[in-house]
Amino acid sequence: MEKIKVGTNAFLYPMPVTLVGATIEGRPNFMPVGWIARVNLTPPLIAMGLNKRHHTPSGIQESQTFSVNIPSRDLIELTDYCGLVSGREVDKSALFEIFYGELKTAPMIKKCALCMECRLFQTVALPSHHLFLGEIVGAYTEERYLTDGKPDIRKMDPLLLTMPDNNYWAVGEHAGKAWSLGNRLKSKKG
Amino acid sequence: MEKIKVGTNAFLYPMPVTLVGATIEGRPNFMPVGWIARVNLTPPLIAMGLNKRHHTPSGIQESQTFSVNIPSRDLIELTDYCGLVSGREVDKSALFEIFYGELKTAPMIKKCALCMECRLFQTVALPSHHLFLGEIVGAYTEERYLTDGKPDIRKMDPLLLTMPDNNYWAVGEHAGKAWSLGNRLKSKKG
Repeated sequence: MEKIKVGTNAFLYPMPVTLVGATIEGRPNFMPVGWIARVNLTPPLIAMGLNKRHHTPSGIQESQTFSVNIPSRDLIELTDYCGLVSGREVDKSALFEIFYGELKTAPMIKKCALCMECRLFQTVALPSHHLFLGEIVGAYTEERYLTDGKPDIRKMDPLLLTMPDNNYWAVGEHAGKAWSLGNRLKSKKG
Repeated sequence: MEKIKVGTNAFLYPMPVTLVGATIEGRPNFMPVGWIARVNLTPPLIAMGLNKRHHTPSGIQESQTFSVNIPSRDLIELTDYCGLVSGREVDKSALFEIFYGELKTAPMIKKCALCMECRLFQTVALPSHHLFLGEIVGAYTEERYLTDGKPDIRKMDPLLLTMPDNNYWAVGEHAGKAWSLGNRLKSKKG
C-alpha cells in the first residue's frame, strides 16, 4: 500500500500513563505524564519531557527529586482530572493518600500499582520542554501486583495513551515472549 | 495493602515496541527499542536510550539520522529476531522492504504501520547508554491505518513490551477519552 506523509508531529504507540509527583513550595503536586521512558541501565535512569509551562518543573528543580506512579484503570478519572487542572490554581495534595520512601520530597501515591522515587540526575533544556533525567532510588508495589516476584502488567492493569486522538486504552492479550519468539528465525537464518 | 520495595531496576508499564533504523557503513540496520518517548513539542523531538554495546549507535553518530518504525503484531517474530542478533554479525538489511523520505540515510520499513525519519538533534552521554534525541522531519503511514486523518491504534495493532518479565502484549479495549474524562470531577471540585 502507498505511504502517505502525515506531517512531523507524530507520536509513539502507545505511551504509558504515569502520575508524576513533586513537592512544590512544600506541597505535593501530581500531573499525568506520557512522554516518559527508561533510558539507562546502570544506574536506572528515567527521562521525561515536561512542558515548561507546567507547574511541576519548578518543584522538581526546587527539591531535585520527583516520583513516577503507575495508576491502575480504576484511577482513570482522577488521573485525567490531574491533567485538566494546574497545581497553581488547585491543591492536588489531598486527592491521594501519599507515602514517602528514602527521598522525603518525592510524594508517592499509595493507590498506584507501582511507585518510583527518583533523584534528579540531569536536566536537558529543550526548546519547549525540560528533559528531566531521574535516578530511581526505590520502587514500591504490593504483593498482589506481583507474579514470580515481578510486577505483572495484567494485575497492575495500567492505562495506555494515544495522541493526537487523545484516548486511553487498556492492556490486551499476551502476544509472546520477548527475546525468545525470534529464536526460530535465528536458528534458520543464523 | 502494604507497600513492598522491589529494588531500583524498575520499568514503565507498558513500553512501546519500535524498530529503530540506521545506516551503518552504508548498510541499513534495525534494532527493537522500547526505551523511547516523545519529549518535546516544537520541534517534535523523540528521545531514546541505546546501550553503548549495540551496533546502532555508531550508525546514528555516523549519519546523524535514524528512523523509528512501529511494527504491527504480524511482525512480532521478525521484530524479536532483530533483538536477538547484532548487525555486527548478521546483515539485517534484507529482512524488510525499505523506503526513504527526505533523509537519505534513515531507512524506514515499508511493512510498519507508522514510520518516522529523524535528524539527530542532540546526544547526551549517560553511564551505560547513549541518549539520542532526534527531530522528526517526516512521518509516514497508510490510509488504512487512519481514522479521521489520525493514526488509529486499533488499526495499527502495535506491540507493548514489559520488562523484566520480557513479554509482548497487544492493545486492549478503549478505556476513555483523555483530557475529557476528568471534567466531571473538575466541575465538582473546581
